[in-house]
Amino acid sequence: MTGGNLRINEDRLWSRLMRSAEIGTGEAGGLKRLALTEEDAAMRRQLVAWAEADGFPVSVDRAGNIFIRLSGREELPPVLVGSHLDTQVAGGRFDGILGVLAGFEVIQSLKEAGIIPKRPIEVVNWANEEGARFAPPMMASAVFAGVQSLDWLYERTDDDGVTYGEALAATGFRGDEPVGGRALDSYFELHIEQGPLLQENDRPLGIVTGGYTVHGMVIRLTGETAHTGPTPMDQRRNALVGAAMIAAATNEIGLAYAPIGKATAARLVAWPNKPGILSSWAEVTVDVRHEDPAVAEAMRSDLQQAIVRSAERARVEAEIVSTWYFGDEVFDADCNALVRQAAERLGVPHMEIKSQAGHDAYYLSRVAPTALLFSPCVDGITHNEREDVPFAETMAASNVLLQAVMARAERD
Amino acid sequence: MTGGNLRINEDRLWSRLMRSAEIGTGEAGGLKRLALTEEDAAMRRQLVAWAEADGFPVSVDRAGNIFIRLSGREELPPVLVGSHLDTQVAGGRFDGILGVLAGFEVIQSLKEAGIIPKRPIEVVNWANEEGARFAPPMMASAVFAGVQSLDWLYERTDDDGVTYGEALAATGFRGDEPVGGRALDSYFELHIEQGPLLQENDRPLGIVTGGYTVHGMVIRLTGETAHTGPTPMDQRRNALVGAAMIAAATNEIGLAYAPIGKATAARLVAWPNKPGILSSWAEVTVDVRHEDPAVAEAMRSDLQQAIVRSAERARVEAEIVSTWYFGDEVFDADCNALVRQAAERLGVPHMEIKSQAGHDAYYLSRVAPTALLFSPCVDGITHNEREDVPFAETMAASNVLLQAVMARAERD
Repeated sequence: MTGGNLRINEDRLWSRLMRSAEIGTGEAGGLKRLALTEEDAAMRRQLVAWAEADGFPVSVDRAGNIFIRLSGREELPPVLVGSHLDTQVAGGRFDGILGVLAGFEVIQSLKEAGIIPKRPIEVVNWANEEGARFAPPMMASAVFAGVQSLDWLYERTDDDGVTYGEALAATGFRGDEPVGGRALDSYFELHIEQGPLLQENDRPLGIVTGGYTVHGMVIRLTGETAHTGPTPMDQRRNALVGAAMIAAATNEIGLAYAPIGKATAARLVAWPNKPGILSSWAEVTVDVRHEDPAVAEAMRSDLQQAIVRSAERARVEAEIVSTWYFGDEVFDADCNALVRQAAERLGVPHMEIKSQAGHDAYYLSRVAPTALLFSPCVDGITHNEREDVPFAETMAASNVLLQAVMARAERD
Repeated sequence: MTGGNLRINEDRLWSRLMRSAEIGTGEAGGLKRLALTEEDAAMRRQLVAWAEADGFPVSVDRAGNIFIRLSGREELPPVLVGSHLDTQVAGGRFDGILGVLAGFEVIQSLKEAGIIPKRPIEVVNWANEEGARFAPPMMASAVFAGVQSLDWLYERTDDDGVTYGEALAATGFRGDEPVGGRALDSYFELHIEQGPLLQENDRPLGIVTGGYTVHGMVIRLTGETAHTGPTPMDQRRNALVGAAMIAAATNEIGLAYAPIGKATAARLVAWPNKPGILSSWAEVTVDVRHEDPAVAEAMRSDLQQAIVRSAERARVEAEIVSTWYFGDEVFDADCNALVRQAAERLGVPHMEIKSQAGHDAYYLSRVAPTALLFSPCVDGITHNEREDVPFAETMAASNVLLQAVMARAERD
């Protein structure tokens, strides 16, 4: 195989990104393309149509993950390259889809150049990365990596009580292929940074060496309904107040550990949550994260104490009903070396970086050597319809992806 | 007219209370009979059936208020007596309905005794007192008293976007009568105390002399969506955090002014309110209340400062989008004197008391001489399915109601 001078078709990639931004358009120029909605299904059909127009075989697994295959010269485990097509409820035009369409450019560029790599290359769209409709995030890549079961996946529900299984069937993307459990050569994912560091350091490429340690949890508060008027303060058991105290305390923990540490109260629901009555039930979803696992653990411990304190002051019961944790992931030195070599050959300034957000690459790193590449996003703004990327830097990172994947697919 | 020895039919009143508790039964032995639902409509039909079985004319006004009339010997403005049939989402079996059914016992007892009072007596059910489905509370009595317009009432929406007008029409209780605007002699309302004072003081009857001053408001917080991971703490504008800080601060204000002062965070909603994204929008509903209007004003001022402080710390915009206020109400000295005389004649121990909750009697006091009577509720528990009342004390208070209304209807 030759191809050291091969480049992706930059205009085609940008054009497809812009045409995709018309599918599930939000209210402010961004996207609302929640997982397994009709908008997500339409975007999936568009991707499949592009793949089939070029004669690439497409397969879909039982979790709804889509694979587009470029065969190799030998029957070896494939190199996977991809990301996700779904977005947040107020999401941007690049978060996720850049990695899928840049991955598709990799195999299309190879095919157009008449290059057949030694190993097969498969472009992948992971279902429901965002977790915006069905929580938690990165759900289908978790099943692919054997971290969760398919039954568990199917039983997750959205806020309207629709299960993942029902929603998937309705899209027409409930495939027949088994989910994971097959040999992989490696996984490459290009994603926008979702932070300001690449822009601040004027680097078009970040080579992710690991993730921030994240401790997340859902805390359920149980109190008792009562009248908002006459009930004496010292007899109240307002679950909403307990949840609000935890949400406020979480934010204070983030401020105390800034700038590296972050802490978020993302979701708070209560019942009855009505004027005139104290709430007997509430749930609050929070997380803390830090680059240093020991500091992240200290933040988690602070959070735990804040939960106890809040529950005591609000006179409610607190129970941690769900926890998650990630950030131990170490990306693969060999894959990262290929990315670095490609960047240097192409003259693309790069830097090592840690991921502060979760990505499908985290789960994939458990079952295959994995590299995660970041490209800049303007002012670090993301999960916001104003999310934007610089054209030249995005294309530079996409060409590094192409070269690194080619090198990996071709290696001895 | 004679009738000094007249008593209500205690077994019939209790039996009807218990049969009513089967209409819209909650999950824990109480009631979930939200305004203008099918359950509320079923309860209304039961009340009308009881009235018509005894030949009492029933009329319904355009707001959905129901009136059951006992004619008087003279064509004079009527004495009104009543309360409300709707409940909270997790409500008790006595809050509201006691005053309606005890009022109905008044006219039924008179009719059965062959007594025709000088003035007409009308039993009333005020629509949507609780405000649990359509906020704010005491909505239909507000229109009756000329405080709000009928158009405003019809346009209020529930959480599903159904308007009051639509819901009322669906119940079949959108009547033809004008709402209010007619001459009234007076208004009497018997209601459970919803606090512990009568029980603690061993009095079956409270004569309400006024209300706690209540300042309520809805605060809207506006921030910006962003990723929960990489977004630096000092760039976050999480509206949920601003709302949570206000909710927690409100509770602290209540604790600072306890035991007389109370402060409540009753409702908090945010958007998108999802894992992975900071919320750009939130609303929190809070109130402060105190017996002394000057102290209530100090609490309101503390709350205002807490809003400013919270918005600043969460880096969000805060706007007070709705406010309400009540507690200036002074109940009528003459009506109260009749209640006191009846209690003394019947040997019912009583005490003066202030209402900490809102009641339809507040609005009625603006258009008619009004008396509000409290009967005990067990341990002050209310807006809770465990709400209960002591039988003997409840009947004693109901007989005072009968005698006071009779005296008022008969006066020169």
